[in-house]
Amino acid sequence: MSTLAQQLQQMEAHQSLFELAVRQLTLPVCAAFGSANAPQAVSFANTARVLSTKDSDSVAKSFPNSVKASGNVVLAASGTNAKAAQGKRVAVLFSGGPASGGHNVVCGIKRVLGAGNTLLGVKPGPKGLLLGNLFEITDADVDAIINTGGFDFLGTDRTKIKTDEQFAQVKATCIKHNLDAIVIVGGDDSNTNAAVLAEFLFKGIKADGSGVQVIGVPKTIDGDLQIGDLLPISFGFDTATKIYSEMVGNILQDTKSSLKYWHFVKLMGRSASHVTIEVALQTKAAVTLISEEVAAKRQSIAAIVDQIAQIVVARAAKGITHGVVLVPEGLIEFIPEMNALIAELNDALAHNAAEFADEPQDTKADFIQDKLSADNARLFASLPAYVVRMLLADRDSHGNLQVSLIPTEKLLVDMVHARVKEINVKVPFSAHCHFLGYEGRCGAPTLFDAAYTYNLGLTAGSLILDGRSGYMATVTGLTTGGTPQAIPLSGLLNIERRHGQDEFVIEKALVKVDSPAMQYFAARRAEWAASDLFASPGPRQLWGPAAYQQPISVALNSKSESLAFKIG
Amino acid sequence: MSTLAQQLQQMEAHQSLFELAVRQLTLPVCAAFGSANAPQAVSFANTARVLSTKDSDSVAKSFPNSVKASGNVVLAASGTNAKAAQGKRVAVLFSGGPASGGHNVVCGIKRVLGAGNTLLGVKPGPKGLLLGNLFEITDADVDAIINTGGFDFLGTDRTKIKTDEQFAQVKATCIKHNLDAIVIVGGDDSNTNAAVLAEFLFKGIKADGSGVQVIGVPKTIDGDLQIGDLLPISFGFDTATKIYSEMVGNILQDTKSSLKYWHFVKLMGRSASHVTIEVALQTKAAVTLISEEVAAKRQSIAAIVDQIAQIVVARAAKGITHGVVLVPEGLIEFIPEMNALIAELNDALAHNAAEFADEPQDTKADFIQDKLSADNARLFASLPAYVVRMLLADRDSHGNLQVSLIPTEKLLVDMVHARVKEINVKVPFSAHCHFLGYEGRCGAPTLFDAAYTYNLGLTAGSLILDGRSGYMATVTGLTTGGTPQAIPLSGLLNIERRHGQDEFVIEKALVKVDSPAMQYFAARRAEWAASDLFASPGPRQLWGPAAYQQPISVALNSKSESLAFKIG
Repeated sequence: MSTLAQQLQQMEAHQSLFELAVRQLTLPVCAAFGSANAPQAVSFANTARVLSTKDSDSVAKSFPNSVKASGNVVLAASGTNAKAAQGKRVAVLFSGGPASGGHNVVCGIKRVLGAGNTLLGVKPGPKGLLLGNLFEITDADVDAIINTGGFDFLGTDRTKIKTDEQFAQVKATCIKHNLDAIVIVGGDDSNTNAAVLAEFLFKGIKADGSGVQVIGVPKTIDGDLQIGDLLPISFGFDTATKIYSEMVGNILQDTKSSLKYWHFVKLMGRSASHVTIEVALQTKAAVTLISEEVAAKRQSIAAIVDQIAQIVVARAAKGITHGVVLVPEGLIEFIPEMNALIAELNDALAHNAAEFADEPQDTKADFIQDKLSADNARLFASLPAYVVRMLLADRDSHGNLQVSLIPTEKLLVDMVHARVKEINVKVPFSAHCHFLGYEGRCGAPTLFDAAYTYNLGLTAGSLILDGRSGYMATVTGLTTGGTPQAIPLSGLLNIERRHGQDEFVIEKALVKVDSPAMQYFAARRAEWAASDLFASPGPRQLWGPAAYQQPISVALNSKSESLAFKIG
Repeated sequence: MSTLAQQLQQMEAHQSLFELAVRQLTLPVCAAFGSANAPQAVSFANTARVLSTKDSDSVAKSFPNSVKASGNVVLAASGTNAKAAQGKRVAVLFSGGPASGGHNVVCGIKRVLGAGNTLLGVKPGPKGLLLGNLFEITDADVDAIINTGGFDFLGTDRTKIKTDEQFAQVKATCIKHNLDAIVIVGGDDSNTNAAVLAEFLFKGIKADGSGVQVIGVPKTIDGDLQIGDLLPISFGFDTATKIYSEMVGNILQDTKSSLKYWHFVKLMGRSASHVTIEVALQTKAAVTLISEEVAAKRQSIAAIVDQIAQIVVARAAKGITHGVVLVPEGLIEFIPEMNALIAELNDALAHNAAEFADEPQDTKADFIQDKLSADNARLFASLPAYVVRMLLADRDSHGNLQVSLIPTEKLLVDMVHARVKEINVKVPFSAHCHFLGYEGRCGAPTLFDAAYTYNLGLTAGSLILDGRSGYMATVTGLTTGGTPQAIPLSGLLNIERRHGQDEFVIEKALVKVDSPAMQYFAARRAEWAASDLFASPGPRQLWGPAAYQQPISVALNSKSESLAFKIG
């Protein structure tokens, strides 16, 4: 075999030249943890800050142990923990969609637990916890996964732990593996899960009557788990948005090179538009839709379409027959009239199920249109055939439409095309559609996410060695060195109606239309629409002068003085 | 305005932190050009190598000036050009689809022309040459565009110069702008254009009876412009494939994290599968289809589908219910039975146009199916409805189907799904589709493409100052320092039948099924199909230890000893 063929074969299974190099990067740690080479566990002390929500009284009744122990008080690192526990057995799991940096959370926990404690990995996700599928994580594992993207070391799943049988299974796993603590890496739902588990496992689990600690770690590329300055952003958001921003920047350069295409790019993010506004701030695309603003202004589809079409026509008048439109994945659900139409459609289909089923394919749409109120019928009639087909498709078991299946970007292209030709038939409009999603969840973490998650891991591990339970690990002050902190999960819980019943949940953080990021975007967008002021953020760099960048929207919202972050 | 808001506004219009940093990178130059800071023009001398094709005699008759001047002999740099011309006026244009590195070609030409000559930019592409739309490129322009992706500095278009009127327009532009030379940056068709223009402009263009030199520069992300060791790869291929490879690597990590999805990724590349095999070698996806192999083995769609389905089922038996399938964009046209079906359909639709038009929508497919031979009718009946709709759609002006509009990746997903369930209904199969194309044409160039194109520019400029015409610039020996060379375009021309008439063209280089890259891929793919041996090539780095990488397929085919490239 040739030298090159040998080298190639050695590059299989996560051994690309990049992966080999990136594992050697030294990550900075908050000063509280001491040296980057041998970080030490910290202890925690109460701050003056107490969290509460409108439902704090109900929470105190349903989560008595957690609230009594924490008082819903935020913790901050208070120095090296000279009396850090030894002999602890800690399990860690990923929950929900993957996000870049998860591996470094595991690495941080393992490093701070050190040789005196044991770290176990749960495969895959909450389901693995129910099944008791645990294995011991070694130092060699840490060396293999550090700074690599994805959740592939442990896998993940979306099982929600809520039935008595499931709680019993978790308890059985804790006993079987003699666990002292569980770290749950996840989003808003998973951290709600962590709060519930923390309460359930608080005491009386093991033979000696003691409990099992539970710590959450804030993950989600959607960026909708934010708690002011205590949690300016969840991990994974920076990597995902920088991947999407590079792709959008590349496409923008293509539009100005090819001089003939519009590209409509739908960006992942289940409901909030954080991802979309960040990509807009990074790239300065001609048009960006923000779902929360559409809802706040009660914009109709026709208004949205007209707004884009007017920009297309105005640019064409200046000889610019190209551009990029950014569309948040959740847009449809934020358009009031679409919500009204879908609600009435759901009813009409349910009430006329038998007749609708008997109706010939060609006349089903007309049949149901006759059952709608005038406004909804008019909107329904204005939609392209493929959207009508989806609106009439089978409902899920709750009778709801899967709105996310509607190809929003294609719908907008078709409607904008028609509107542009209506305004001026001579204006050229040729468009391509993209959906950026899965590409961004598991890429190699940015230096920001790599350092942030490693320090989140060090914080989570420290909380366990300090005997804490029911907290979410966080690192604040990401531009001033970083401070390990802990947020009492019970202080975040609200009651929301979901699937027809009241549930305790951590509220999703939507884009605030009066936030500094939104204000900056609103102040600049007219100029971005009028000319080609875009920038190309380029591939994220792990070495060199462009490596230290936090998300722009986070920098604006947290009133940072620059884009640079600083840990350590 | 806050400090940050000011910083953000300064980042507009190509001033991202990455773009600012990347402009400062010093690029290495071939030893022949002297120092990287002040590269000098080289002169050229004949090598012992003469190029020929089956049609060389016809070429000699149609390109008498070019063949007489070059003798179809390959040139190589022969030392610093002490007598380099002064006062030349040189135009440069981009032609065809954009590719990363084009800006550096311009920078290389400008640097080697120096203050003693003038470089003009043509906007946009060949159309700009016809219109005489030229402007002087300054040193400040070079500083602004160096190492940035895209063709946006000049724009591009696809106008083919072939009519007498067009030739007259080119001549008028040459006279109007007093041009001495034109550099055409393009693919196989554009370099054919360059050969034709070189012959047309050889002499008698200007008042003193002299001609205008024409030099081609080899660009195309498709990688189908290759001439053995003289041109191992065109520029833009490395950047595009590394962008696609990162995305595929990210998706592969997602599959192993989420543990439930197959992703079918269609990769740009009009006909050849070079892009696809390179991405396969970079990522080691479970399944990769190579169009040229499908054609060579005369595989049917059913056989391709069965091959993928068997891998899905075999992996599921080992508990691996996820994977990635790479699909070259041009696949459909390489499947013999699809070609036969489309040809017979074209005939049947043409011969039964009136009756077909009168047929109700629902029965059109049945109507036409009855007109087909048994084999084609069977294949036609096996295709999903949306493919049938496309196959029956309006033909272009030549009566041909636009095969590229068929969503090959979706067709494969649907047929594989059906086949998997046929083999074993219990095997889970949930799939997502992607098309990676526009994202890869204009990204910031890899270090390989950045250095390669800068040296191609230095070579093209040197050829002009050495009085040459009718050559394509190339840099050979990319792992041993690099040698500026020139390929006589007339030595590459073949006669091919296109659009119903014989034309001189440069043959497209398809993937050779017996090439070293293909052999290596064929030797490893069974293991890649059987387990998760993938690697994640990561974002391309411009700094740090992972920056120096040539394409793997190029390294294999040129029998390099390592993946590192070395210029200078």
